[in-house]
Amino acid sequence: MVENNDISYFFDPKSIAIIGASSKPGKVGYNVLRNIVESKYQGKLFPINPKAEEILGYKSYKSVLDVPEKIEIAIFVVPSEIVNPIAEECGKKRIKGLIIITAGFKEIGGLGITREQELVQIAKKYDMRVIGPNCLGLIGLNYNGSFAANTPKNGGIAMISQSGAMLTGMMDFSMDQAFGFSCNISLGNKADMDEVDFIEYLANDPNTKVILCYLESIEDGEKFLRVVPEAAYKKPIIILKSGVSAAGARAASSHTGALAGLDIAYDLAFKKCGILRAISIADLFDYGEIFLYQPIPKKNSFAIVTNAGGPGIVAVDSFEREGLKFAQFSEPVLHLLRENLPAEAAIFNPIDIIGDASPKRYEFTIKTIFGLNERAQGYIEEDDITTYGALIIMSPQAQTKPADVAKLIYEIVSKSLSDKPIVCALIGGVSMAEATKYLKQHHIPCYRFPESGAKSLKAMVTYNDFLNRQSVKDLDVAKFKVDKEKVAEIFKKVRADERTVLLSHETSEIFDIYGIISPKSKLAATPAEARKLQNEIGKSVLKIVSPNIIHKTDVGGIILNIETEQEAFEAYVQIIENAKKYGPQNARIYGVEVQEMIDFKEELKVNEIIIGMSRDPQFGPLLMFGTGGIYANFMKDVSFALSYKFTKESAKDLIENTKIYNLLQGVRGEPASDINAIIEVLLRLSQLVNEFPEIVELDINPLLSFVKGYSAVDIKITISR
Amino acid sequence: MVENNDISYFFDPKSIAIIGASSKPGKVGYNVLRNIVESKYQGKLFPINPKAEEILGYKSYKSVLDVPEKIEIAIFVVPSEIVNPIAEECGKKRIKGLIIITAGFKEIGGLGITREQELVQIAKKYDMRVIGPNCLGLIGLNYNGSFAANTPKNGGIAMISQSGAMLTGMMDFSMDQAFGFSCNISLGNKADMDEVDFIEYLANDPNTKVILCYLESIEDGEKFLRVVPEAAYKKPIIILKSGVSAAGARAASSHTGALAGLDIAYDLAFKKCGILRAISIADLFDYGEIFLYQPIPKKNSFAIVTNAGGPGIVAVDSFEREGLKFAQFSEPVLHLLRENLPAEAAIFNPIDIIGDASPKRYEFTIKTIFGLNERAQGYIEEDDITTYGALIIMSPQAQTKPADVAKLIYEIVSKSLSDKPIVCALIGGVSMAEATKYLKQHHIPCYRFPESGAKSLKAMVTYNDFLNRQSVKDLDVAKFKVDKEKVAEIFKKVRADERTVLLSHETSEIFDIYGIISPKSKLAATPAEARKLQNEIGKSVLKIVSPNIIHKTDVGGIILNIETEQEAFEAYVQIIENAKKYGPQNARIYGVEVQEMIDFKEELKVNEIIIGMSRDPQFGPLLMFGTGGIYANFMKDVSFALSYKFTKESAKDLIENTKIYNLLQGVRGEPASDINAIIEVLLRLSQLVNEFPEIVELDINPLLSFVKGYSAVDIKITISR
Repeated sequence: MVENNDISYFFDPKSIAIIGASSKPGKVGYNVLRNIVESKYQGKLFPINPKAEEILGYKSYKSVLDVPEKIEIAIFVVPSEIVNPIAEECGKKRIKGLIIITAGFKEIGGLGITREQELVQIAKKYDMRVIGPNCLGLIGLNYNGSFAANTPKNGGIAMISQSGAMLTGMMDFSMDQAFGFSCNISLGNKADMDEVDFIEYLANDPNTKVILCYLESIEDGEKFLRVVPEAAYKKPIIILKSGVSAAGARAASSHTGALAGLDIAYDLAFKKCGILRAISIADLFDYGEIFLYQPIPKKNSFAIVTNAGGPGIVAVDSFEREGLKFAQFSEPVLHLLRENLPAEAAIFNPIDIIGDASPKRYEFTIKTIFGLNERAQGYIEEDDITTYGALIIMSPQAQTKPADVAKLIYEIVSKSLSDKPIVCALIGGVSMAEATKYLKQHHIPCYRFPESGAKSLKAMVTYNDFLNRQSVKDLDVAKFKVDKEKVAEIFKKVRADERTVLLSHETSEIFDIYGIISPKSKLAATPAEARKLQNEIGKSVLKIVSPNIIHKTDVGGIILNIETEQEAFEAYVQIIENAKKYGPQNARIYGVEVQEMIDFKEELKVNEIIIGMSRDPQFGPLLMFGTGGIYANFMKDVSFALSYKFTKESAKDLIENTKIYNLLQGVRGEPASDINAIIEVLLRLSQLVNEFPEIVELDINPLLSFVKGYSAVDIKITISR
Repeated sequence: MVENNDISYFFDPKSIAIIGASSKPGKVGYNVLRNIVESKYQGKLFPINPKAEEILGYKSYKSVLDVPEKIEIAIFVVPSEIVNPIAEECGKKRIKGLIIITAGFKEIGGLGITREQELVQIAKKYDMRVIGPNCLGLIGLNYNGSFAANTPKNGGIAMISQSGAMLTGMMDFSMDQAFGFSCNISLGNKADMDEVDFIEYLANDPNTKVILCYLESIEDGEKFLRVVPEAAYKKPIIILKSGVSAAGARAASSHTGALAGLDIAYDLAFKKCGILRAISIADLFDYGEIFLYQPIPKKNSFAIVTNAGGPGIVAVDSFEREGLKFAQFSEPVLHLLRENLPAEAAIFNPIDIIGDASPKRYEFTIKTIFGLNERAQGYIEEDDITTYGALIIMSPQAQTKPADVAKLIYEIVSKSLSDKPIVCALIGGVSMAEATKYLKQHHIPCYRFPESGAKSLKAMVTYNDFLNRQSVKDLDVAKFKVDKEKVAEIFKKVRADERTVLLSHETSEIFDIYGIISPKSKLAATPAEARKLQNEIGKSVLKIVSPNIIHKTDVGGIILNIETEQEAFEAYVQIIENAKKYGPQNARIYGVEVQEMIDFKEELKVNEIIIGMSRDPQFGPLLMFGTGGIYANFMKDVSFALSYKFTKESAKDLIENTKIYNLLQGVRGEPASDINAIIEVLLRLSQLVNEFPEIVELDINPLLSFVKGYSAVDIKITISR
């Protein structure tokens, strides 16, 4: 990556060169220049075209090197073959940023990939930043540096899109909406600058209030996890991530891999970073609009005000579906409502002010629940106000004057409600058109049906929860003292042996080093060694150790209940004999493992747990916890967490998201399991997989959880080649 | 209920009396009359008002009895107090149907309830049918018999609403949409006629193509289950059922009650009846529109055609989310696409005809996938066409001519595509407005974003699946021979004993009668009887039997492993002694139960199953199946089915919807469990709870499932008082 963090020149450039500017309408080089001119760009403009003297009234140059003045950015619309030589010239000219609209790079494969790599090298050499290639361009507040057909309205939404077509579609959609953009960025191939660079910049951009992204992939997950949370504390960021079905390049030979959904790492990463994930394009804009115009509610405690029962019930359903909570009105508020609303009105939340509700009645009710009513002065204390936002519903009845109510709502909001969001649902069409238009223009989100209002409010509650969480940066990740060298040596040996799956005594040693309890296990290379180890370990089970023998039982490779040294000696001899007789020919035999026998039948209570790790190509180690045992894959009672900044709290959440958590807590009079011990296992495991990126998969199944302590009985570790 | 099934007079009345017609604008009696007149009603109109001679140019009468001609229906807008006396007059006048707009009945409680009951009695007496009371009225194709502000457009959608406000809102919404209504019905209090009556009628109404309902409750679930499936085979029926959170009046002292969601019976009933359930108002209309205008696809096999990658990926995501399947193009189709589309195009589904796609390219592609291309004549056979519908996406690019593409799409659809649905997603706003309007007007559903298109297509696939299912009417429900009398006697005894929970030997006997295997259990009233029963039963466990002793173990009320008659005799004496000593004072003791001891440790494989029944207030017995054992409530691995028309297939579905089904099939080399035996248990249980409505709850937990056979070990039956 090129390093150069102040990229403000892309958004407000003092001078622009258009490489490949053209005077022929229809040509991209013409459209870009025309867009810049028509967007009333105030800086200096230098068309570059070896064949022209002048284009659209601007003097044209053969090369950027011929331009006598400084140039801040260059927009490329020349054929792909000549992009790199000209980029080299731009570097020499000390141009800061390049926007490469030209296609014909990585996306065409082969030569295009090399061309893109060269471009990045050139940019690096001259400390230039690059947007694209293969993009629509960039539109800032002061210029339209794209070949889009229209220039969208200015406003507070920053839009970043990995698809040019989606960007044009969404800009087109916005033209008759009530919001505008601080910038529209087309990412193209992301050769240099990606979504994270822009999110980082825009989080500090005073013109941007909300950041919307359409993404198809995230290449550098680690950078995303590191940078985005800090940005999300400054600005709401909403991402529509598509390509859910194509996501899964994750290895799936482990339990963890098989049980994790293809898209789960994105979900977890977004949650960790405080990103609001939009599922549809409609949601993306609904969320964008409410964050742009409405304050973030301090509590999940809302009121519904309606003039009809039916729509009220529909709204209640959508509140419940979204997990929105109903404000419990205080007695003074209820008293005022009771005294002033008709007897048939419902004064408990949702408030039904009934069919003949006049604008005055709407006004009274809204003011009362927010404590703004004059009649409430000196009567209602601040503590009596429990409503932190409202959904106001109008249905078209004879006395409903939607336009008047709309004006009253705006008046209340603009005068007195600076920290509580209001959204409206105007059930209907033609008779609600004027009120809808008025509300939208006055920055009050307005929907045809209550469901969208509930979803938007929920997005705000989710974001508020994030804001109240500890900063990801400050998360305290436990760090246990371990002998990493010894683990590295084990992996080295395994590699030397051309294996990727560790043998049992190896996993046992690694777990021992990382402080995770598993049955003691050592490798005996001779019967005499077996005898010695039995003495050391006690009651044991002996198992054949060979990378070529997978089903040990089938070849007579396991003997249980070895209680004496002599038995161990004899079992060794027997096992080797069996393996030679029944195992595959020429199997490499390392010896016999002497493993401690855990007598868990003596435990007061045993739960079988599965704990695992699968490495996500974008976001790194993905931890899993859930119901273990031989049926783990069928019970599918598991939850997942990224191992990035994995804290004690994360471990608790992970455990609490499963059904087996109920059993661990102890039900029906049973004692609780040692949940703290499991939390520690997860923390130690997280450290292990973070410190050794060569571990691609890891499963513990089962980990036997006891009332006191645990034992990680069966462990599988796979490392990369 | 009143019986009189031809209700066509409500929809096309030859003559109408308006009881309480008024000449004063603003009065409901004025609005209704004006609506009828303005909707160009062609029949005879009789305002009834004792104080007027003439209203709006129509002669007014003091009473319906004064009208010299026949009257088919009467619309009431008089105060509630005088509704019933006038209804009586209507009866005498032989009026067929009453629409009672007047409020002040059941919904106000107290006196209103009595008033409504009286109204129903009067209607019954004179064989009149009643809509309402407390409703907006009814709007047919030929008259607007409501006090709504507007008369909606005529068209093929029948709308039934339990909320007047929702109805006015939805009608208002429809005014600028491309669809209209065959009728709009406001149900009000449903004193007589309910949604089922109207669904039944409208299914045979030639003017109605789709039925939409907004419902808050269904009172007569049995009637719904009986009538609606037949209607759904004739017309698509889409219901938005609100009040999800308020649904649960179901008993919840059983496992089944506790585990069933509040709304689950509605979901199951709707599925059984072929109802499409809308979750939002937007869905309700999206589904309504596609069913109104587009043919039902014969297979779940669709194509996506797009001119840009991004929107294509978003569409693919929504297809996957909805479970829509992608058509696999045949080689001849692929060949044509390959030969005629640009090299950069993606010819596999989704087809990306890329940014510079002209209308001609859209036309070629759409025709090719449906085999309508001239170039394909004689080249593509019918079997080569695998596409049964399509989502066509346009994003605004320089060469896109949306209006031209729209016209071509309509041309193709109207000429050649009579049995394959087409929907469009036009990504954008202003530049897509003309094309969107054109498509909608020409009955091609058109959305701003692909997600809604995918949802609508999915609704059609779901409906087609229903149409291909066996008619609910013809379902073959197993009927086992049982001695019902004996069961009835047991319940009688339990009632006489003032109990609602059956004792173990009683449940055991009932299960025995219904052919469900449970451990043998009999009641001994004396030590001698215990001796005799031990001889009969074999190895047994003896348990105290007393309705006052719940925790038998705690009072020494259970003795296991009784292998001889003598042991049984002694155990009896000991248990009674213990119970008297440690049990509650004055506990009623019936004796000691001698129960067969099942030695399931000898079984090859044992799975613990839970099977239960909870009676839903609307839809009757709700059966449950899932993972049993002491953790059943925590594992929550259960599925549900209505016991109405519960067949072998239903039982299979019920079992297959759980995770434990995987284990029952046998995993990891285990043998399969006796699933057929479990199916039979479910069928027999279903018969039991249907034949005895007094059983309010029933739990078997666990039922031990073996490789051969099973044993219903622990049974709890609760009957109504």
